[in-house]
Amino acid sequence: MKTWQPTKETAEDVISAFGSPSYLYNIDIMTESYNDIRKRLANEYEIFYSLKANPNISITKAFHEKGLGAEVSSRTELETALLAGIPSQKIIFVGPGKKISELERAIDLNLLAIVAESLEELEYISQLSEDKNLITRVMLRINPSFEASGSALAMGGKPRQFGIDEETVILELDRIKSLRGISVIGLHIYVGTRFLDHRDIIRNTENILKTAYEIQKIFGYSFQIIDIGGGWGVPYFENETELDVISLISELNQISNGYLKENFKGKIIIELGRYLTASHGVLLTTVNYIKNSRGVKFAITDGGTNIQLGAVGLGGFVKRNFPMKNLTNDTKLTEEYYITGPLCTPTDTVAKNIAIPASKQGDVIATLLSGAYGPTASPIYFLGHGYPAEVIIKKNLIHLVRERDNHEDLLRKQKII
Amino acid sequence: MKTWQPTKETAEDVISAFGSPSYLYNIDIMTESYNDIRKRLANEYEIFYSLKANPNISITKAFHEKGLGAEVSSRTELETALLAGIPSQKIIFVGPGKKISELERAIDLNLLAIVAESLEELEYISQLSEDKNLITRVMLRINPSFEASGSALAMGGKPRQFGIDEETVILELDRIKSLRGISVIGLHIYVGTRFLDHRDIIRNTENILKTAYEIQKIFGYSFQIIDIGGGWGVPYFENETELDVISLISELNQISNGYLKENFKGKIIIELGRYLTASHGVLLTTVNYIKNSRGVKFAITDGGTNIQLGAVGLGGFVKRNFPMKNLTNDTKLTEEYYITGPLCTPTDTVAKNIAIPASKQGDVIATLLSGAYGPTASPIYFLGHGYPAEVIIKKNLIHLVRERDNHEDLLRKQKII
Repeated sequence: MKTWQPTKETAEDVISAFGSPSYLYNIDIMTESYNDIRKRLANEYEIFYSLKANPNISITKAFHEKGLGAEVSSRTELETALLAGIPSQKIIFVGPGKKISELERAIDLNLLAIVAESLEELEYISQLSEDKNLITRVMLRINPSFEASGSALAMGGKPRQFGIDEETVILELDRIKSLRGISVIGLHIYVGTRFLDHRDIIRNTENILKTAYEIQKIFGYSFQIIDIGGGWGVPYFENETELDVISLISELNQISNGYLKENFKGKIIIELGRYLTASHGVLLTTVNYIKNSRGVKFAITDGGTNIQLGAVGLGGFVKRNFPMKNLTNDTKLTEEYYITGPLCTPTDTVAKNIAIPASKQGDVIATLLSGAYGPTASPIYFLGHGYPAEVIIKKNLIHLVRERDNHEDLLRKQKII
Repeated sequence: MKTWQPTKETAEDVISAFGSPSYLYNIDIMTESYNDIRKRLANEYEIFYSLKANPNISITKAFHEKGLGAEVSSRTELETALLAGIPSQKIIFVGPGKKISELERAIDLNLLAIVAESLEELEYISQLSEDKNLITRVMLRINPSFEASGSALAMGGKPRQFGIDEETVILELDRIKSLRGISVIGLHIYVGTRFLDHRDIIRNTENILKTAYEIQKIFGYSFQIIDIGGGWGVPYFENETELDVISLISELNQISNGYLKENFKGKIIIELGRYLTASHGVLLTTVNYIKNSRGVKFAITDGGTNIQLGAVGLGGFVKRNFPMKNLTNDTKLTEEYYITGPLCTPTDTVAKNIAIPASKQGDVIATLLSGAYGPTASPIYFLGHGYPAEVIIKKNLIHLVRERDNHEDLLRKQKII
């Protein structure tokens, strides 16, 4: 997949209209890329948008207009999906720590399914539904016994807060079947994230489907939905290679023509968040100061780890650089810089020894591959800098979709004692 | 310093009045602990409160009422200090990436000093002040040539985005002295954070003062202020020992009677943030689910890394546990748990194999040592869970000082396109 970057003119338009720093997402390219996937992928697979990657309402709405359902994992994400126009019958609700109030809202909305992550949660859902004289569709999240291969954050085969251990489902079948307020319509088996080798995804998918088949057998009826998760990765760093999505889809289609058709009647959900958004968004920051310290050139920008913690990989100190460009000066001659943000800590370094053209105060720096896990995954209140602006390009026009915070926003909910 | 924890009754009162999760800070003990320091410390030292550790207005106000000045590092923190009642003549403004709009506000307010972190910033301050026909007090932040000892995040002796290299100040003295809109009233030399051995702080202080003396000499007049930073550490983990603050203060007082009196006429600022707040605050969460997965007991709470990223040390996965207590069940018999939050990622694990009493749904869990670098240093928008409530105990009464976010708060500033 091509990594998008805006032109110098677009970046300058965004900064002059909406200020700096700003996240800029290209919805046109996001939805085109989705179209490419959709037209190749067999109809048995439905794609759901994982809001956790980028919960902007306008982006969610754009995917809704392409027909995607939504995977949400909190009340806020649920309301976001609804505001984006997604009908509740196309929303599934996952997450290991759902509150009773969240379950009640989900039950009232009659979602496509609540994905239950424990027997206790199943019992809550059943009881709450019975109290309302309802039967709620649930999917069981399974913590499979096989170990996933190739993931940065593997989730299967280990003790986990997620899902019900495969062996527990089998042991507790009678208890599950006795619950009168729920109808188990399927399974959710998510084994990891950021896979860059399609063979890992295929191998995991085969294992997921085998696990699902075994569980379906003991339930004794055909599930309507098997959610096989997603985890399609995006290469952020120089030593990473792109996911071969053509081969991935072709092999997924082979599975759908073979094992799937033979063993399942329902639909298969693939959850995609990062893969649909990361490559088509950038963070635009502005250089506030250039300084030399003991032979090292620092470009100090107005947005660092406080608004893009993901760029340092949650590792405290940046180890590998995200791709970054100087959009103001785009000559080929480069110099090496440390790029830092506005915080008073050495950990606020987002790139080390990165080669960019000679930079000066006022230059616009773009961090590419920033469309997923941006501000919402960052400590935006740190030192009071607040949420940056979010801007989209849709039908080639630029729109502000999230106003930046000012100090009044950050202080509004405090009461002085 | 004693680690504070609330009683079971207080915790239950807070949760029942203001919900869960909530941060709870004991201002009475914070200010008592400050009093202990203040009464021991020589008058030459003034303590400034570093808002970055905990920018809650009510906490800032409590320290203001004890006479502390404020060290701020953004427009929001500056306005917070003013709202807390701190006069601008007791505020200094630090930070490597100050925006022009922030400098203008600071100049208009006639702060005690703007701490300039580069020659470029000095020139901006001077020009902006000249345009307003003002002379602005500045302190120069110096990146010293000596290497600090004993810090988790050392800042001296290396290329850094902070301050002006010691050798550069000397080379550029004429340029600095030619600036007509500023008056250099002092120096700021901050060399690191989280020192737990007082001898490191003393050694660094001696080095800082020697550096300051050399620079004062070349400026040719007595500085009014030397800011020696802070970095007084708090032991979070089992293998860490407490800072010997009695010896630290006694040795600081010896310095003030000797080297300080001989060489300086002005006052010395010590910046304290974490040390004044961390031990006197807790995060209260509630267990939403207890589950067993393959022999491991998980307590899934309603607040994890999304509201307390600091508890995993910015390291992605928790390596060492913060002290945590079950306040509902406080028997001596314990079991081992993984304590996790509500996020859909295995990294949302805040404690591993921690021994706490048998826990059940509804139990209140307290993470101690959580008074500093809590919600503002965490990705509070992640998965849409929002900012938790903040509650203080002041004069033995409980007050809500920051309402929790709901989904409407999180969505308010979005525009749907």
